[in-house]
Amino acid sequence: MTSNAAPDEFSLIDRIIARLGDAAATSILVPPGDDAAAWAPANPGVIATTDVLTEGIDWRADTMSYEDVGWRSIAANVSDIAAMGATPEILLVAAVLGDSLTPEELDAAIDGMAAACREHNVRIAGGDISRGDCTAFAVTALGSARIDRAGRALVLRRDTARVGEIVAVSGSPGAARAGLAVVDAKRTHEPAAEPLLAALRRPVARVDVGLAAVLRGVQCGIDISDGLAQDLGHVAKRSNVGIEIDLERLPLHIHAMAMFGIDAARNYAISGGDDYELALIGRGDIIESLGLPLTVIGRVVADHPGSAVVLRADGRTYEPPPGWDQIRMQPWSSA
Amino acid sequence: MTSNAAPDEFSLIDRIIARLGDAAATSILVPPGDDAAAWAPANPGVIATTDVLTEGIDWRADTMSYEDVGWRSIAANVSDIAAMGATPEILLVAAVLGDSLTPEELDAAIDGMAAACREHNVRIAGGDISRGDCTAFAVTALGSARIDRAGRALVLRRDTARVGEIVAVSGSPGAARAGLAVVDAKRTHEPAAEPLLAALRRPVARVDVGLAAVLRGVQCGIDISDGLAQDLGHVAKRSNVGIEIDLERLPLHIHAMAMFGIDAARNYAISGGDDYELALIGRGDIIESLGLPLTVIGRVVADHPGSAVVLRADGRTYEPPPGWDQIRMQPWSSA
Repeated sequence: MTSNAAPDEFSLIDRIIARLGDAAATSILVPPGDDAAAWAPANPGVIATTDVLTEGIDWRADTMSYEDVGWRSIAANVSDIAAMGATPEILLVAAVLGDSLTPEELDAAIDGMAAACREHNVRIAGGDISRGDCTAFAVTALGSARIDRAGRALVLRRDTARVGEIVAVSGSPGAARAGLAVVDAKRTHEPAAEPLLAALRRPVARVDVGLAAVLRGVQCGIDISDGLAQDLGHVAKRSNVGIEIDLERLPLHIHAMAMFGIDAARNYAISGGDDYELALIGRGDIIESLGLPLTVIGRVVADHPGSAVVLRADGRTYEPPPGWDQIRMQPWSSA
Repeated sequence: MTSNAAPDEFSLIDRIIARLGDAAATSILVPPGDDAAAWAPANPGVIATTDVLTEGIDWRADTMSYEDVGWRSIAANVSDIAAMGATPEILLVAAVLGDSLTPEELDAAIDGMAAACREHNVRIAGGDISRGDCTAFAVTALGSARIDRAGRALVLRRDTARVGEIVAVSGSPGAARAGLAVVDAKRTHEPAAEPLLAALRRPVARVDVGLAAVLRGVQCGIDISDGLAQDLGHVAKRSNVGIEIDLERLPLHIHAMAMFGIDAARNYAISGGDDYELALIGRGDIIESLGLPLTVIGRVVADHPGSAVVLRADGRTYEPPPGWDQIRMQPWSSA
C-alpha cells in the first residue's frame, strides 16, 4: 500500500506493525504488508470515514502527548462510525512525519493508537508513511451495517430528522472543552481536573449507543465532535427542519461546573468541540426506552428550518460566545 | 466525517463536492456529507488501501501541476487495488492544506482527482480537510473481491509466489522515471517526450490486468510503483523464494531508449518508481494465455530466497545504480 517509500520506510512500517502488537489486524483475509488489506465485513453495508489530525491545528503540544494524539486519531474515526450506528472493524493509518518528529514521539503515537484500538475493539489493517514539513495522521475507519430488504442501509443519517421527534445526547457535552480550559488555566493538578482531561485526551466513542439506537429503529444521529449546536445545525440543515435545544436540560459535566461555573460549563456544552458523544433524533417513546446514558435536550420543530437554536427557560434564544474556535488557526478562505 | 472543521471548512467541503461533479459518489447508500459514507460493495471481500502524497517528497512543483498531483493521488491508490486483482469502487480523500496553497491550486487538484476518477470508473465518497504547514493528500481506495468457499479472498498477494512460476510485467516499466529525466533535462518540448511525461503525470492503473489474472487463477502480483526490482524483492521476501529477472527481456519504453539510450532506459525500468504497472507471478501457461499487454521477464527459483536479482545474458548479476532515490529527501532514520 506504500508508494515511493524509501527502503528505510519499509523497515519503519515493519517496526510499526510489530509495535502495534494485537492492534494490528493480522487475522483478516489479507493482513498488513500487501498492496492492500482484504477483509470480510460483518454486514453487507460498508461504512467508511476518514479524518486527518494535523499538528498545530488539531492538537497542540501543550495540551496532549503524542500518545494522546494517537488515541484521538483512532477515537475520532471510530466515533464517525458510531455516529452511523454501525460496527467499527478495521482502520488504515496514513502518517506524514514532520522533520521535527522524533522516533520516540512516533512510538508514543503508535502506542496511543494501539491502546485506542483495544478500547474500541478495532484493528489496524494497513497504512502508509511519508515525510513532510508537518506531522499529520490521516486515519480511515471502516465498519459495517445491515441493509434492509429495500436495499437501504440501517444507519443513523443526518437527513432523517422529522418534526415532532425529540433530541437526546449521550454523556456530558463540553467535557473535552473544559479539559482544554483546565490546561489553559494551568489547573491540571486539581482533583476535579482528571475526568475533564481524560475527556480531552482519551475520549471513547459511543459505539454501543449508536448500535442500540439503530437496532430500535432510530434513523437520525450525529456525533457532536464539532460542538453540539453546530452539529445539530447540520442535522437541521440536511433534514430541512428546525431544532430547539433547552438550555436548562443540558447534562453539564459536574466537574466542569465545579471548576468553571455553570455559565462556562453551558457554553462548553453548546459550542465546545471534540466530545465524541452522540446526538440521537427520533420518536420520544423509542429514545426514552433505549436505557442508555442519554438525556433528552430538545425537539424537532417546523419553525426556522435549517437552524438549531438554544432556548432559555423563558423562551428567548440563547447565543453562546465563540468557544472552541479560539484555538484554531485562521480558517482557510477560498477566493 | 469531519472533526473540528471550522464553519468555513464546511463551505469548502460543499464546494469541493460540487466541483467533483459526477466524480462524487452521490448514488451510494449514504453519499458524502454524513458522518461516514455507506456503500454496498460488489463482492463480499472488501479491499482497502491508503496512500499519502506530500509536497516536496512525493511531488515537486517543477515536475507536475496540481491537476497532475490530484490525478496521481487517485491513480496511486487505485493501482494498489488493481495490484490485488480487485475492483476499485470508492475513495475517501483527507487533505492537509498548506498555508501557501492557493484556492486555484486546490481547485486544480480536485479537477485532477475528478478526471482520474472518471478514467478509472471510481467515485469519491467522502473526505476531510485540515490545515497544516505542508500540503498533503491522503487518499483511501476501497474495492471488492470474491471470496471462495473456503473463505479465501480471490486476490493477488505478495506471499504466494512458488518456485517454477514465471514473472511477467505489464507495459513498459521505467516510463515515469524517464518522464522525470525529461523534466530534469529540460527536454519537455521534444516530440518523444510526450508519452514519458504522460506516464509521470497521468498514469493509469492496470485494473483490467489484475482482474483478468485473478479470473484465470493467478494468485501472486504486485504493482511496481516503488520500482520493479524493489517490488519483486518484496514478493521474494514475503514468499520466501528467489526471483530472477532477465535484463535482456525488460520491455523498455521505446521513447525512453530514444531519448536517453538503452543503459539509462534499463536502469529506469529496474529501479525507477511511480510506474503503475503490475508484475504477475504464476504458471507459465496461464500467464502466457492471458492475452494482455504482458511481457515475461523472469522466473521464481529456489536459490537466494528473499531476493530478486537482475541477470545479464551471461548469467552475471546486474546492479543498477541508485535511480529514483536521488530525488528523495533524507529517509527518516529510526533510533
